[in-house]
Amino acid sequence: MKRIYNFSAGPAVLPEAVLHEAAQEMLDYKDSGMSVMEMSHRSKIYEQIIAEAEADLRTLLAIPANYKVLFLQGGGTLQFAMVPMNLMKNKEADYIVSGHWSKKAAEEAAMYGKVNVVATSADKNYSYVPDGSHLTLSPNADYVYMCENETIHGNKMFTLPNAEGKVLVSDSSSCFLSEPMDVSKFGLIFAGAQKNIGPAGTTVVIIREDLVNDPAFPFVPTIMKYKINAENGSMYNTPPCYGIYICGKVFKWLLQNGGLVAMKATNEKKAKLLYDFLDHSHLFKGIVEKKDRSLMNVTFKTPSEEMDNKFVKEAKAAGFDNLKGHRSVGGLRASIYNAMPYDGVAALVEFMKKFEKENA
Amino acid sequence: MKRIYNFSAGPAVLPEAVLHEAAQEMLDYKDSGMSVMEMSHRSKIYEQIIAEAEADLRTLLAIPANYKVLFLQGGGTLQFAMVPMNLMKNKEADYIVSGHWSKKAAEEAAMYGKVNVVATSADKNYSYVPDGSHLTLSPNADYVYMCENETIHGNKMFTLPNAEGKVLVSDSSSCFLSEPMDVSKFGLIFAGAQKNIGPAGTTVVIIREDLVNDPAFPFVPTIMKYKINAENGSMYNTPPCYGIYICGKVFKWLLQNGGLVAMKATNEKKAKLLYDFLDHSHLFKGIVEKKDRSLMNVTFKTPSEEMDNKFVKEAKAAGFDNLKGHRSVGGLRASIYNAMPYDGVAALVEFMKKFEKENA
Repeated sequence: MKRIYNFSAGPAVLPEAVLHEAAQEMLDYKDSGMSVMEMSHRSKIYEQIIAEAEADLRTLLAIPANYKVLFLQGGGTLQFAMVPMNLMKNKEADYIVSGHWSKKAAEEAAMYGKVNVVATSADKNYSYVPDGSHLTLSPNADYVYMCENETIHGNKMFTLPNAEGKVLVSDSSSCFLSEPMDVSKFGLIFAGAQKNIGPAGTTVVIIREDLVNDPAFPFVPTIMKYKINAENGSMYNTPPCYGIYICGKVFKWLLQNGGLVAMKATNEKKAKLLYDFLDHSHLFKGIVEKKDRSLMNVTFKTPSEEMDNKFVKEAKAAGFDNLKGHRSVGGLRASIYNAMPYDGVAALVEFMKKFEKENA
Repeated sequence: MKRIYNFSAGPAVLPEAVLHEAAQEMLDYKDSGMSVMEMSHRSKIYEQIIAEAEADLRTLLAIPANYKVLFLQGGGTLQFAMVPMNLMKNKEADYIVSGHWSKKAAEEAAMYGKVNVVATSADKNYSYVPDGSHLTLSPNADYVYMCENETIHGNKMFTLPNAEGKVLVSDSSSCFLSEPMDVSKFGLIFAGAQKNIGPAGTTVVIIREDLVNDPAFPFVPTIMKYKINAENGSMYNTPPCYGIYICGKVFKWLLQNGGLVAMKATNEKKAKLLYDFLDHSHLFKGIVEKKDRSLMNVTFKTPSEEMDNKFVKEAKAAGFDNLKGHRSVGGLRASIYNAMPYDGVAALVEFMKKFEKENA
């Protein structure tokens, strides 16, 4: 069996131990005589899988009791619509635009109400995170929206914005469970699974109970109401059962490996190794301002597109895949999620050193 | 390894050969060094997986070139909203209500326009399919909606309604790929994967190109526009990659096993075996009128709820699982999808005979 170092931004590398277990259980989950893919979502055996996934996630993040945990479909993109559809009561919201995904979210929300961009780093192509300490918020805004880690640009909001008591909504997809998080600071957190926790097609939503209400709009599809999903324990319709099962295994893997405190320490060590190299390289250069650099998505470039392409090609041949930057920004990107081992980053840095020498 | 006979209505039994392959490829798909769960959806290797799935589905159903095939998320429930959101131009549609799911679809559509129930079998709790040969359709209706196979009640629309040239929309989830289908008779067909083709979380939509337009409504989430999904080859956002991969394997399994003509013959044989037994049993009784009985979901009952429960319990102990009827109708149900082998139905009938004798 061959395994490569996969630096994909998502869908992305998963813990090998999780994949091993999933393979072993594929035809017969715990002596049930069924694959998890084949189980009725209303069966006791599946109910235990989803209940354990939720319980383990609550443990990992120390989620307060007054928050609901939902496992939904549709990815971040569906959340871009669900958030305003459900939370806009005054038909107005404040958005911090720090990259591609928060920009998309703001554009989608504008279909449903007034969107105020209260801070943006568009002026430097999102190579930094705008200061959120003194925002001019709108009195009518129902919430303040942020993207904690912009996957494409590779920036991270290390300091939460001052939302002045307003509901704070975060797209935390690409840094979710990479470190501890104070859930109580947020009204709603969502995360597409395909970055750090599982296969594409599952989305985790953590929502404070007082926000779980009937939407103010008359045209919200039933399945897009947080209230309906919460009341039905994420089973108003058939949930993405197999995806939730894999996420559950990843949660257990995290718990077994020291939880999010240990994960943070490893992630910082991995990112430091790569950024330290970039800071001293004569060929490669980091793209994001030091203070705002993501620990998950490391964006960088060489002096030319040709050299970038040469690097991607030779890296792939050497067993380091998916290092091309997103088509909307170019350059290079190494996504080093939880499941990317330290050795993978170390091997990449060694390869980059070698490439630098050969192309000096 | 233990395998039971799983009569779940969905998520449901999958071909063992497919599960075997998926297990083998879990850590390393075709020497890529990655699980399909870990692959960028924009990578060449994944693009081939989704392209082959579409091509194989087109072959299986002989889908005409002027139809788009989409792989979406959200299940039938999201389609209940997407259909009216996208297809209602005159804000009116005609619905045939032949069971739980078409009723839900009609209720959801009523949020977006005028819904006319042009035929229903609610009077006898959907134990038959209403006649669709002489419907009184509304001049303004944008489409006529039907559910080809009602999973909960166990009825099947063997004759298509006379839509008088109007666009015919079908929820074909629970009979999809169980037999050949003349796609050209429909404007739109959708099917949740978790019945006959794969894991929950993937939905197939087959839509005639002239219906792929900008919605008339101003508030349709971007991801819910058929046009956006069609223009982006089902990749406007990250698709449910792993689910599509499993569906693709099921499509190949169907092609290798004689396609839908062979599947239909086997399904008819399986259903006949079970219905013939029910028709002669002194204990068990079929629920649906003979002419409208589903080949996929066989609903039946004993004289009492206590006896039903006894049967479910003893059957489970004997290796026949998920035979309880849907909580909304009670009784018993055996779902015998493509992947349920003839031997499974034969074994169930033998068990029912034995149970009948013991409880005479």
